Amino acid sequence: MEQFEFTEHSHRRYNPLTGDWVLVSPHRTKRPWQGKVEKPAIEKRPEYDEKCYLCPGNERAGGHNNPEYKDVFVFQNDFSALVPDIPEGNYSNGELFKAESERGFCKVICFSPRHDLTIPEMEVTDIRKVVDLWCNEYQEIGALDYINHVQIFENKGDIMGCSNPHPHGQIWGQYSVPVEPAKEAVMQKAYFDKHGKTLLEDYVAEELMTGERILVENDHFVALVPFWATWPFEAMIVSKCAVANITQLTEEERTALADAYKKLTVMYDNLFEVSFPYSAGIHQAPTDGQEHPEWHLHMHFYPPLLRSATVKKFMVGYEMMANAQRDITAEQAAQRLRDLPTVHYKAK
Amino acid sequence: MEQFEFTEHSHRRYNPLTGDWVLVSPHRTKRPWQGKVEKPAIEKRPEYDEKCYLCPGNERAGGHNNPEYKDVFVFQNDFSALVPDIPEGNYSNGELFKAESERGFCKVICFSPRHDLTIPEMEVTDIRKVVDLWCNEYQEIGALDYINHVQIFENKGDIMGCSNPHPHGQIWGQYSVPVEPAKEAVMQKAYFDKHGKTLLEDYVAEELMTGERILVENDHFVALVPFWATWPFEAMIVSKCAVANITQLTEEERTALADAYKKLTVMYDNLFEVSFPYSAGIHQAPTDGQEHPEWHLHMHFYPPLLRSATVKKFMVGYEMMANAQRDITAEQAAQRLRDLPTVHYKAK
Ligand SMILES: O=P(O)(O)O[C@H]1O[C@H](CO)[C@@H](O)[C@H](O)[C@H]1O
Ligand SMILES: O=P(O)(O)O[C@H]1O[C@H](CO)[C@@H](O)[C@H](O)[C@H]1O
Repeated sequence: MEQFEFTEHSHRRYNPLTGDWVLVSPHRTKRPWQGKVEKPAIEKRPEYDEKCYLCPGNERAGGHNNPEYKDVFVFQNDFSALVPDIPEGNYSNGELFKAESERGFCKVICFSPRHDLTIPEMEVTDIRKVVDLWCNEYQEIGALDYINHVQIFENKGDIMGCSNPHPHGQIWGQYSVPVEPAKEAVMQKAYFDKHGKTLLEDYVAEELMTGERILVENDHFVALVPFWATWPFEAMIVSKCAVANITQLTEEERTALADAYKKLTVMYDNLFEVSFPYSAGIHQAPTDGQEHPEWHLHMHFYPPLLRSATVKKFMVGYEMMANAQRDITAEQAAQRLRDLPTVHYKAK
Repeated sequence: MEQFEFTEHSHRRYNPLTGDWVLVSPHRTKRPWQGKVEKPAIEKRPEYDEKCYLCPGNERAGGHNNPEYKDVFVFQNDFSALVPDIPEGNYSNGELFKAESERGFCKVICFSPRHDLTIPEMEVTDIRKVVDLWCNEYQEIGALDYINHVQIFENKGDIMGCSNPHPHGQIWGQYSVPVEPAKEAVMQKAYFDKHGKTLLEDYVAEELMTGERILVENDHFVALVPFWATWPFEAMIVSKCAVANITQLTEEERTALADAYKKLTVMYDNLFEVSFPYSAGIHQAPTDGQEHPEWHLHMHFYPPLLRSATVKKFMVGYEMMANAQRDITAEQAAQRLRDLPTVHYKAK
């Protein structure tokens, strides 16, 4: 009988970080596409846009004015999903109706005063300032007694719900540990208790041995396509040594993180020669005042594009009701990304 | 101190079917929207389209010809993500790298020969034929020894990845029980073992008492906005009595399901007077040959629109990395849907 091959046969892969599975259908890339095509991102933007509410000196929706900031700039979201001043409260009616009030807050970080830049087009020294701001915010927000989780993330591109192309990200802090990091916490704890090492320490070491799914490597960080990747060109930046949260990174490690962030996103932009949309976010230890030796800092990148700058992967019916699904394999995606030039296509 | 109110204060709600939580931010609807707007669906379509690969008599991508079908029509997907003839196999390298080959198959169901119709515009007697086909397929596919789960679903609208507006749905059968129904199985089993009744039996009874989140009720089915709804206008059709799978429905109950399906989707279309996009899918007992008294048949509807026919809810950065999030409350969404006319806007 024929041998089972990743490149030929449908299979499920296990995600040890969440305990979930992904369905991989490698033969399905041959499917023609007659569905929705996206507008490609507008490429040429001015350095300053007087109508942009994130540009230096401009007025924001809430009526506040941005300072004439020179590198990074953080402010409280004018339309925060989470706010600090709400009454505590619980609602419960048997086992089936349960709710709890949730305190927190939402901040916006501008990555650069320049309206026309994005992370892959910025200098590593400037991205380093973004990393430093993340560290400060994690520390400061996390120190509040009603904040147990700090979520740093970036939505890039209008197909990822980003309403402004000015380079920026967000930070939401809140009382509860949300669903996704809570799942990863359980899996990482079980692994650590069993092996005395973090799950991702062992995982990264294994990946570095084969090299098959590695995209970028520097002294302290690796960017790779996880074995269990769900989105077509999903990637993860992981520290080589176990670090529970970003404030524990040394100066040199912070710069290495900025470097990996830039190199990965340059690959992304070069794939379809377009400003590549994605949502990215950092998973790290909760800010509950406890030690978390089981937690291993990492940053997920979930980019939606599949075949071109205009055709994305839809996570819809089957995926929503049953199981995440992908067409090309993680190894094929890694190969395609790795084969790209390392210089940004606009700088050629 | 002020009292905690669902309509005013951010809170988390518990989903007893999955064990997950959703973050609700009721005050956030005031946020202005400067981001992506979708093209509204094209409303006027011909009854027959010679370029449509689902219309009767036409040729499909795979080179096959559709028969001159008169009501419903089912065929094997020409680009199936799952196929029956693959070698069995496992791959495992320690705890962190695990994969298994996955057999199955994918079918497409045309709901009607008419290219211009959708479920809310069809007669209940014709929707009933769709329900009957679901029953036959669940029975037939489920009887295969290598099929343990049958996923019936529908992607409607191009923003839900649907590449053809001809009314149709899909059925994927496979060896493993996928992630989503597996989560619901665990929760339903625990509830049934404890109470000797299904989770949804108790839930529906409670919802019928308050009526707050009920959208449609007939003799055998209820359509409601679940207390833990994630998508802005998410809904669920549930049988009033516990039924593990659709083949156990009586004749009368099948018609009642068709009726609820129509009434709910008419509400949806009337909300923004547009053909309302969604992904829908049926969760029911696995086809593993066991009795499943804990399973309670239901159909989820996940519609992406938020504010209008052109502005959707983006489940992106925070939602992907941390936690599902919504703005309007489940009760507000139910109220808005319930207040709509019951006649389809095109038939006015
Ligand atoms: O099978 P279709 O309609 O071509 O494809 C659509 O539904 C599938 C099942 O939800 C998804 O995997 C695809 O991403 C989507 O475009
Ligand atoms: O906060 P923004 O950028 O206005 O909004 C965007 O990101 C949020 C956090 O992922 C999402 O809840 C919104 O749906 C999305 O449009």
